[in-house]
Amino acid sequence: MSKMFSQRELTMLTDFYEITMANGYFLEGFKDTICYFDMFFRKLPDNGGFAIMAGVEQLVEYLKNLHFSTEDIEYLSGRHMFSGEFLEYLRNFKFSCDVWTIPEGTPIFPGEPVVTVRGPVIQAQFIETMVLLCINHQSLIATKSNRIVRAAQGRAVMEFGSRRAQGFDGAVYGARAAYIGGCAGTACTISDQLFGVPALGTMAHSWVQLFDSEYEAFKAYAKAYPNNCVLLVDTYNVLKSGVPNAIKVFNEVLVPNGYRPTGIRIDSGDITYLSRKARKLLDDAGFEDCQICASNSLDEYIIRDMLIQGAKVDSFGVGERLITSSSEPVFGGVYKLVGVENPDGTVKPKIKISENVVKITTPCFKNVWRLFDKETDKAIADVVTMHDEVIDEEQPYVLFDPNHTWKRKTVENFHAVPLLTQIFKNGECVYTPRALNAIKAYCAAQVDTLWEEVTRFENPHSYYVDLSQKLWDEKNRMLSEKNY
Amino acid sequence: MSKMFSQRELTMLTDFYEITMANGYFLEGFKDTICYFDMFFRKLPDNGGFAIMAGVEQLVEYLKNLHFSTEDIEYLSGRHMFSGEFLEYLRNFKFSCDVWTIPEGTPIFPGEPVVTVRGPVIQAQFIETMVLLCINHQSLIATKSNRIVRAAQGRAVMEFGSRRAQGFDGAVYGARAAYIGGCAGTACTISDQLFGVPALGTMAHSWVQLFDSEYEAFKAYAKAYPNNCVLLVDTYNVLKSGVPNAIKVFNEVLVPNGYRPTGIRIDSGDITYLSRKARKLLDDAGFEDCQICASNSLDEYIIRDMLIQGAKVDSFGVGERLITSSSEPVFGGVYKLVGVENPDGTVKPKIKISENVVKITTPCFKNVWRLFDKETDKAIADVVTMHDEVIDEEQPYVLFDPNHTWKRKTVENFHAVPLLTQIFKNGECVYTPRALNAIKAYCAAQVDTLWEEVTRFENPHSYYVDLSQKLWDEKNRMLSEKNY
Repeated sequence: MSKMFSQRELTMLTDFYEITMANGYFLEGFKDTICYFDMFFRKLPDNGGFAIMAGVEQLVEYLKNLHFSTEDIEYLSGRHMFSGEFLEYLRNFKFSCDVWTIPEGTPIFPGEPVVTVRGPVIQAQFIETMVLLCINHQSLIATKSNRIVRAAQGRAVMEFGSRRAQGFDGAVYGARAAYIGGCAGTACTISDQLFGVPALGTMAHSWVQLFDSEYEAFKAYAKAYPNNCVLLVDTYNVLKSGVPNAIKVFNEVLVPNGYRPTGIRIDSGDITYLSRKARKLLDDAGFEDCQICASNSLDEYIIRDMLIQGAKVDSFGVGERLITSSSEPVFGGVYKLVGVENPDGTVKPKIKISENVVKITTPCFKNVWRLFDKETDKAIADVVTMHDEVIDEEQPYVLFDPNHTWKRKTVENFHAVPLLTQIFKNGECVYTPRALNAIKAYCAAQVDTLWEEVTRFENPHSYYVDLSQKLWDEKNRMLSEKNY
Repeated sequence: MSKMFSQRELTMLTDFYEITMANGYFLEGFKDTICYFDMFFRKLPDNGGFAIMAGVEQLVEYLKNLHFSTEDIEYLSGRHMFSGEFLEYLRNFKFSCDVWTIPEGTPIFPGEPVVTVRGPVIQAQFIETMVLLCINHQSLIATKSNRIVRAAQGRAVMEFGSRRAQGFDGAVYGARAAYIGGCAGTACTISDQLFGVPALGTMAHSWVQLFDSEYEAFKAYAKAYPNNCVLLVDTYNVLKSGVPNAIKVFNEVLVPNGYRPTGIRIDSGDITYLSRKARKLLDDAGFEDCQICASNSLDEYIIRDMLIQGAKVDSFGVGERLITSSSEPVFGGVYKLVGVENPDGTVKPKIKISENVVKITTPCFKNVWRLFDKETDKAIADVVTMHDEVIDEEQPYVLFDPNHTWKRKTVENFHAVPLLTQIFKNGECVYTPRALNAIKAYCAAQVDTLWEEVTRFENPHSYYVDLSQKLWDEKNRMLSEKNY
C-alpha cells in the first residue's frame, strides 16, 4: 500500500499553458529543437543566509513515470484545441531530456541554477510545473526545519504538523523535507513507513479527558508503555495537577517494575516558566532523567527566546509553523529558458530582460562550483560558470561581484566542487538513490561548512554567488546589445 | 489514471499518537466505548469575518477506504509497541462511526462544530489527523479564494499557483477549494480532469524568448490559436514592444480571417499604470473587446488597490498568495473530545479547561443552527444547541452572547436551518456527492446571506455564534464544578 502513495500518475499535474505551448511548438516545427532551462530562485525565505535543496527524489519519480495515458489523451482531445498529430506525439511520448540538479541537502543560494534541463523544447517546457513544485515545496520545508533545528542548539526537534499541512503530501513530503533539514523525527506515521523518517507520538488531551481523572489516565498509559512513558501534563493544570500526577504514576507504576520515565510534554501556557518549575518538581522527586518536551505553536524565534530565558526543555515538537513554513510559506523558484541549441550543436544563449534588475536571467548552459578553503574546510563562494568551464584548483582564482565588478578577490589553496549532478541522460534515469539518513547527515555536514556569519537569523552575511569571467562577458554582451 | 491520483491509501497518514492511544484504549477495555469528538476552529484567517467550509469530499473518500493492509500491520508489528490482539483488531478493522459535517461551501465561524464524529473511541480518535488535514487545508484555500474573488468585484479570478503549492495535492485540491471559493478556473490541468475545475492557460515568457522576435512569437501563437488568442506582452517592454506587436498580429493574423483577439496578459511592472496605457492603445486600434489579464504576486489587497486606482483589468491570475494563503497559511481547526456515552445511552459531557479562555471547549453532542431573517434572507446568527434540541421557528427566540450573557436579543420571523449533515451512519457512507459547480454556486449564494458588515476585510463585524440556554447551562455547570 505504501507504494501507492508515491506512485501516482502525475503527468497531468502541469499548468495548462505547458500543453498549449507544446502543441504550438509542435505546429511550428520546433518538436526537435533542443533548449536549456534553469530553475533558480531570487530570494531566501525568512531573510536567511541560505536555503536547503530538497525534493529531487520526488522529481526523479515523476520524470521516470512521465507518460500520457489513454485517459489523458481523451481529456486533451475533448478540449478541441490540439492537433491530431500532436496528440499522437503525446501518445508515443518518450522522455529524452538531460537533467542536472544540485543534490538534496546542499545549501543553495539565490541566482544559481539548482536544476538544469536540456532537451526538446516541448519536453523541457512541459516539466516546468513539476520541477518547480517538487523543489519549491521541499526546499521551503527543509530550509525552515534547518532554522528551527539550529535554534534548538542540539536538542531534538520533532515535526508535529500533519493536521495543519496544506494537503496530504504537504504532510508526507513535508515530514521528509523536515528530516533532511535536521528534525529528529515526525508524528506522521506514513512518512516513517515510506521514507524511514522516525515516527513518534504518545497521547493527546483526549486520552486524559476520557478517563475519570488525570491520575487514572497516566496510570493506564504507564502500564501500556512502561518503556516509553511520556505524559502530557497540561490538560488541567501543569504544576498543580499534571506534574504531581505524573510523579505519582512514575513512582507507583514504573519504578517498582524497574522502569524509568521517558518524559513529560507541556503543550500550553508559558512553557519557559512552566518547564523550569516542572524541572524542579521532577528533580526533587528523583527524576532528573525525565525529559521535558515542549510543543504549542513554536518556531525558531520562540525556541531561541525560550532557551535565552532558561527554559528547561530537552526536546521540541514543532507543528504548523514548520510544516507550512508559516512565516514565509512560498519558495519562489522560477524556471527560465537560457539557451537554444543550433543545428551545429552550439548554444545560442537566451536572456530575459526586466526593468527589475533581479529579474534579469543569466543566459547559457551553466554549472555551479563551490569553492572550499583547504585549511578551514569553509565554503568561500559559489561560482557560476559555462557548463564546459573547469576551475583549476592549482591556480589562484579571481572572484568578482557580478553587480559591482570592481569588488575583486583572489583565492588560493581551495577545493572546487561542481554542484550540478546529472540525474537523467537522454531520458534515462542515472540518479543514484540515497538513503534519507545519508542526505540528512550530508546536509548537517554541508551547513557546517558555512561561516557563522552566513547562518545567523538576523542580517546574515550575503554568501558570494559570482559569475565566471567568461559567463559575465557573455551576459554583459547580451545586455549591451538589448536590441529588443 | 486520474483515479489513481485520488484513490491513494491514506490510512497510515495519521499522527503516530493516534495509534499508541488506540492500542492503549484497546488494552484498557475501551474498545467499544462510544465517544463524541468535534472539529472546530478558534480564529478566522486574515482577521476576516467568516471562513468557507471545504474538503468534505476528500474526507468522505478517506473514510470510505479506511482499512489496514498487510503491509500496514507488518509495519506496526515491526515497531514492537503494540499488542497482538490490537493488531488483529486492526486487521479486521471496520469503520462504524457516525459523522456529521457542515456542507462544503457554507460560511463557517469560530467556536461552532464543523465536523462531529460519534463512534468507538479507537476509531473516532484515529481519524483525527485526516479530519483536520482535509478540512483545514481546503477551508483555508476556499476562504482565501473567496476574499480575492470579492476584491475583484465581478472580474474573473484564475488560480495560477501550482508551481508554488505545498506538495502535489496542495496544488490539486487547492485548485478545487479555490473554485469552491469563487475562482473561475485554474492553471492546474489535472484539477480539470479530476474535478472539472476549468483549466486555462496560454503562454509563458519562454514562448516569446524562443522565437527570434516577439512579433514572430505572437504571430505563431495567433495562427495556432486564433479562437483563443491571449498574448503575454511583458517579455521585453509592455508599451513599446508587447502591445504594439500584439496589435500588429491581431490585425495581420486574426482580423483578416474573421477572428477577434481574446486578450493580452501583463505579468510584471506597475500593472495599474500599464493596463491603463495598454487599454488606450488597444481601444485606439479598434480592439475595445480585447481583454486585459493581470498576474504577478496578486492578492485581495493589491487587487482592491489596483481597482481603486482605475486599473483597466478584466481578469486576474493569482498564484502563490492564493494557493498557499500566504498571508495566513494555517487554518487552525482542532478536534476535541466532547462526550462519552454511558452504557445506558446517555452522554457524559467532557470539557477541556484552559487558562486561555478561548481554548475552553464546549461540551456535549451538539448541532448548529443558522437563523435567517425571513424578510431580508440575511443570516442573523448561528446557535449551537444540544443535538436533540429543535429551534421552533414559530416562537420568538432569545439569543444571548455566551461570554456576556446580559447581551440578549429576541428574534422573530426567522428560518432556522440545521447545518450539520450526516455523511456516515454506522460506518456506511450516506454522503450525497454534489457537483463542484453546485457547491461553488451554493457558496456564492450563502456568502450573499451575510451582512456587508461581516464580509468586509478591515474590522468586520463579529457574526454571532451563540449557545442555546440548555447548552450554556450545561457548560456553565461543568465550569463551576471544575473539580480537577
